[in-house]
Amino acid sequence: MDDKMMLMIPGPTPVPEQVLLAMAKHPMGHRSGEFSQIVAEATENLKWLHQTQNDVLILTASGTGAMEAGIINFLSAGDRVLVGDNGKFGNRWAQVARAYGLAVQAITAEWGKPLDPEAFRTALEADTQKQIKAVIVTHSETSTGVLNDLKTINRHVKAHGEALIIVDAVTSLGACSVPVDEWGLDVVGSGSQKGYMIPPGLSFLSVSPKAWAAYETATLPKYYLDLGPYRKNAAKQTTPFTPPVNLFFALQAALTMMKAEGLEAIFARHDRHKRATRAAVKAMNLPLLGPDDVASPAITAVLPQQVEAEKIRSVMKKQFDIALAGGQEHLKGKIFRIGHLGFVCDRNILAATSSLEATLMQLGYDQFNPGAGVAAASAVLNS
Amino acid sequence: MDDKMMLMIPGPTPVPEQVLLAMAKHPMGHRSGEFSQIVAEATENLKWLHQTQNDVLILTASGTGAMEAGIINFLSAGDRVLVGDNGKFGNRWAQVARAYGLAVQAITAEWGKPLDPEAFRTALEADTQKQIKAVIVTHSETSTGVLNDLKTINRHVKAHGEALIIVDAVTSLGACSVPVDEWGLDVVGSGSQKGYMIPPGLSFLSVSPKAWAAYETATLPKYYLDLGPYRKNAAKQTTPFTPPVNLFFALQAALTMMKAEGLEAIFARHDRHKRATRAAVKAMNLPLLGPDDVASPAITAVLPQQVEAEKIRSVMKKQFDIALAGGQEHLKGKIFRIGHLGFVCDRNILAATSSLEATLMQLGYDQFNPGAGVAAASAVLNS
Repeated sequence: MDDKMMLMIPGPTPVPEQVLLAMAKHPMGHRSGEFSQIVAEATENLKWLHQTQNDVLILTASGTGAMEAGIINFLSAGDRVLVGDNGKFGNRWAQVARAYGLAVQAITAEWGKPLDPEAFRTALEADTQKQIKAVIVTHSETSTGVLNDLKTINRHVKAHGEALIIVDAVTSLGACSVPVDEWGLDVVGSGSQKGYMIPPGLSFLSVSPKAWAAYETATLPKYYLDLGPYRKNAAKQTTPFTPPVNLFFALQAALTMMKAEGLEAIFARHDRHKRATRAAVKAMNLPLLGPDDVASPAITAVLPQQVEAEKIRSVMKKQFDIALAGGQEHLKGKIFRIGHLGFVCDRNILAATSSLEATLMQLGYDQFNPGAGVAAASAVLNS
Repeated sequence: MDDKMMLMIPGPTPVPEQVLLAMAKHPMGHRSGEFSQIVAEATENLKWLHQTQNDVLILTASGTGAMEAGIINFLSAGDRVLVGDNGKFGNRWAQVARAYGLAVQAITAEWGKPLDPEAFRTALEADTQKQIKAVIVTHSETSTGVLNDLKTINRHVKAHGEALIIVDAVTSLGACSVPVDEWGLDVVGSGSQKGYMIPPGLSFLSVSPKAWAAYETATLPKYYLDLGPYRKNAAKQTTPFTPPVNLFFALQAALTMMKAEGLEAIFARHDRHKRATRAAVKAMNLPLLGPDDVASPAITAVLPQQVEAEKIRSVMKKQFDIALAGGQEHLKGKIFRIGHLGFVCDRNILAATSSLEATLMQLGYDQFNPGAGVAAASAVLNS
């Protein structure tokens, strides 16, 4: 049906009505006092969301633009970096680093498996000359639904002492705790169309004093993504270039909603939805791509057997008006991914799991008891 | 009054209600067939607006991001470039070029004066070794309201034969004719919050086959702004990174409105508003910053005497709810700028000029006959 699609992809995610309506207001001048107040309020609330006193900068770019800025502002050509690569996005940060002439040492894991913190420890401990300048890690790997063990990897980075930790938190920030100050995360990138509950178009970077010190001597070329002017302008509640003012209205409204819900409640909700979704999928006897103990709070990847992933997506979309994500790269056609990130409520989880059951029945998959998936999800949601 | 501000700044510009409401729709998946249709339609209409068969790519960035992409994708470190610099934006492109290690030869003119095409001819004719790889020109210099003579400068670039012409058309595209194919403009950058009548957040680049040939050997580092993947994805009606889907809804709606109005009507409207505004300012005996024959169709800069520019802006904003732009850099506090770009009708011009008269009267400026400015504007609008 027209206008009926329910987004359960890992971004864009659903947007609350009050956020959509805030966005539909007439633009205002971006150099006005009124707009500066919005920048100031949004920045304060972003610090709250990041659990940090570090600068949190707002860029007009997709999450990839923010991550590129988070890499190139603190490094120089030839610098050695460790990059965790166990999915499409980890792989992308290695590509970015190579595009700028950094010496990349990739620490890989199979797609669907988590990065091994021990591999980081070994590489960092072997670097007695302290030549590794940064470690780049994707926290929630969106392509597989795996949550890497950032806390442990970061502990090894801290033991190294020299390297910066640069984190892709695009689908973890706002879904689970990313305690920037407590863990001492130097650079953390995220994007608006994820946990933030607003449409794509803005991205965010928190930057630590240690990273700013590295910025002073970093020599990779940059202009639009040069974070120095962003920092300087943010101190005056403005931006170096014309910002998407309507997306700022949306950001202001969404952060107000998030503060009202509270961090612990937001994280508990995502954890509950993750567990309910996984319980339902298991009760349908469909294999999950990754193990439970490293499951992302944002997305669940399913590797169906005896029924085609793309057929499931097609029926879900056409009959039940639910958009699921497919697989990427070599997982294309093999998995489907259920997004449960951002503005998602318990009802959405039941709608998705019940529709998935009906879809499986329609496709002739008979390896489960109809109703078992929804019952399993309900049990988690009620617990 | 709350919600009453009329934007007469050079961006963000006013946005039609149907565009605001299109933007307030729920996001859709950016990898869906439905979204591809929007990308395809918008791209076709962008080509119409650019009067070109070249690729027109859509970036999630401010105009500065697009211009940076338009420079770095086609050049290598050490390449010689001519950059026209007669205002804040021309100066910015020289800064971008220098940030990437290009050998910049600036061709300057005083702010408020146009670039001299002869200076370009001289420099290009002297380059018998054909070492100048690109000429970067700002068409409408937003900081001063001067329209540079792109047509003549471009003729000299064409006579050189080797150099690319890279154009900042941020406040000229959609305000006056920028015939990309007829003139053979290689790279043309623009931004959504200008003639496009949509909020900031998108920018556009048209790219010629000659520029794509230069892309093949250009070696400046890039990833988010690497236009190759944009081109490859555009051919499949998609984008390399998550686009701001709601701004695409707005783009689709605005381009539909522009096509209904027609290019000639749009350009005639901007020309009429420019002439009416200048006639009104002259009738108030306020000096204009630049001469009539190089006046931008987007913006009129006024250099008031016997009354302070910032006081004028303050009364216009507080009493009449009209936002005017101030001066930038050394012109700060000395000029004010009236934007008449994008979704502006004749009534807006009369509202602005009559409010300006009332403001001058309130500030004790008596060097004009009250009513003379509005009468002069009306005469132009009716002619």
